Amino acid sequence: MSVMEHSRWLAPAWPGDGAAENGRPPGLVTLVGAGPGDPELLTLKAVKALQAAKLVLYDHLVSPAVLDFLPPGADRVYVGKESSRHTLPQASIIELMLRLARSGRAVLRLKGGDGYIFGRGGEEAQALAAAGIPFTVVPGLTAAQGAAASVGIPLTHRDHACALVLATGHTRDERGLDMDWPMLARPRQTVVLYMGVHNLPEICRQLIAHGLPGDTPAALVERATLPDERCITGTLADLPQLALAHGVKPPALIMVGGVVGLRAQLVPQTARQQQPLATASG
Amino acid sequence: MSVMEHSRWLAPAWPGDGAAENGRPPGLVTLVGAGPGDPELLTLKAVKALQAAKLVLYDHLVSPAVLDFLPPGADRVYVGKESSRHTLPQASIIELMLRLARSGRAVLRLKGGDGYIFGRGGEEAQALAAAGIPFTVVPGLTAAQGAAASVGIPLTHRDHACALVLATGHTRDERGLDMDWPMLARPRQTVVLYMGVHNLPEICRQLIAHGLPGDTPAALVERATLPDERCITGTLADLPQLALAHGVKPPALIMVGGVVGLRAQLVPQTARQQQPLATASG
Repeated sequence: MSVMEHSRWLAPAWPGDGAAENGRPPGLVTLVGAGPGDPELLTLKAVKALQAAKLVLYDHLVSPAVLDFLPPGADRVYVGKESSRHTLPQASIIELMLRLARSGRAVLRLKGGDGYIFGRGGEEAQALAAAGIPFTVVPGLTAAQGAAASVGIPLTHRDHACALVLATGHTRDERGLDMDWPMLARPRQTVVLYMGVHNLPEICRQLIAHGLPGDTPAALVERATLPDERCITGTLADLPQLALAHGVKPPALIMVGGVVGLRAQLVPQTARQQQPLATASG
Repeated sequence: MSVMEHSRWLAPAWPGDGAAENGRPPGLVTLVGAGPGDPELLTLKAVKALQAAKLVLYDHLVSPAVLDFLPPGADRVYVGKESSRHTLPQASIIELMLRLARSGRAVLRLKGGDGYIFGRGGEEAQALAAAGIPFTVVPGLTAAQGAAASVGIPLTHRDHACALVLATGHTRDERGLDMDWPMLARPRQTVVLYMGVHNLPEICRQLIAHGLPGDTPAALVERATLPDERCITGTLADLPQLALAHGVKPPALIMVGGVVGLRAQLVPQTARQQQPLATASG
């Protein structure tokens, strides 16, 4: 659906719109985390919300198989934020969501992963609260969790990590990537970076510059938990090269730390029997 | 079930034990994350594994309502690690799991939260892999996610946090708590500490000593997502006092950072209508 088509949903003529002016109470907004992709990784609560939905606003990273839980008659509005013009900016998504809820319609706001972990769910909840619209939040597995179980990298392991750090790898300011390198480069922790594939060379360079050894195990997990998931493992020093060689594309996670080195042992053995290891190295 | 009772499961006379010697292949072990407590926050995959289980080894933090998904005839073995003698040490849990799988029995290994986030799942997977026993891993929501959605604290919000740090607050060495204070005390991040309630005064003192302002918003979430969940909000400076006043007990999470300050706005409004805010301050 293009931005032009979205305007239909924003037009005052939308059925029910303006009903709040007639004293009709606003609809409940349910902010649901759709998990990492595999529909079996949805929570029961999310499935129930999907099955009861009449109107859903969903993001780019929601996998099609998740939408299969919607009733046939549900109105589906794609508001995804992939880097193309066929999407709505965040402010417009919020405006649309508020308008629909004010019109009295119950809204299922469906986001990939967990809406409260890099999902802008906090901003949407703030807007709903400020508008006096009732809402509830259903958490979802975040991509790091799906990837960890699927490719065989425990996010923490007492011998390798006393903390798990989740961060994004795409926010830039005038000096380059706006990331807390001293924090990210601490030893004895696992770092998972979302949305960082385009900046992988700079990320690896900075982590090494801030103290992590070049041979620190590092992996890329592309399309975690989906049938075409790939995992490329290497080190901070060689991962950018491997990513290039394998043509890794978003959505993909960057995972860094000693736990990545456990993968060779821990690929779930049922998976190992079914499919060859997609590991490039390490 | 006491340790004595566990010995029944370890005895050579256990039905099927030793069957591997007869050439019977080992049973599949499914490591399942049971999520934060609310059974509706189980994944579909976890529910299917529970419904098909014949033998389950489960931990202290698995809520009884989760076990209700097991078939009536399933063998249930409590191996929980609460601080009492009625539990098995980790090495014995692994030994039991291996023995049962080697006997040809399929084993559901059920852990609170996500087995790969402070759940020792990595160690159990390593033991299974080393023993050549097939296994698979089903991730679960970790307590931080359940708490965040339930009490109204977005784990990340662009105005307050560019990273989410999960760590444990109970590991001691000869110098005191074995934690990376300089990392935990960085600004612009959200820190969630598991298993730290008993050390709360030291944790808050160290975070302040390492640079976080005393008025940094901080919360305790006790029994996240369960019917008797409580959330106490305050600051790093006053949280230990509030915890004492309210008698907060494990299991509880410590949440620190600017996002905690958003709670007053973001308590899910449906919840707000149903129950009074259990907030002590802030």
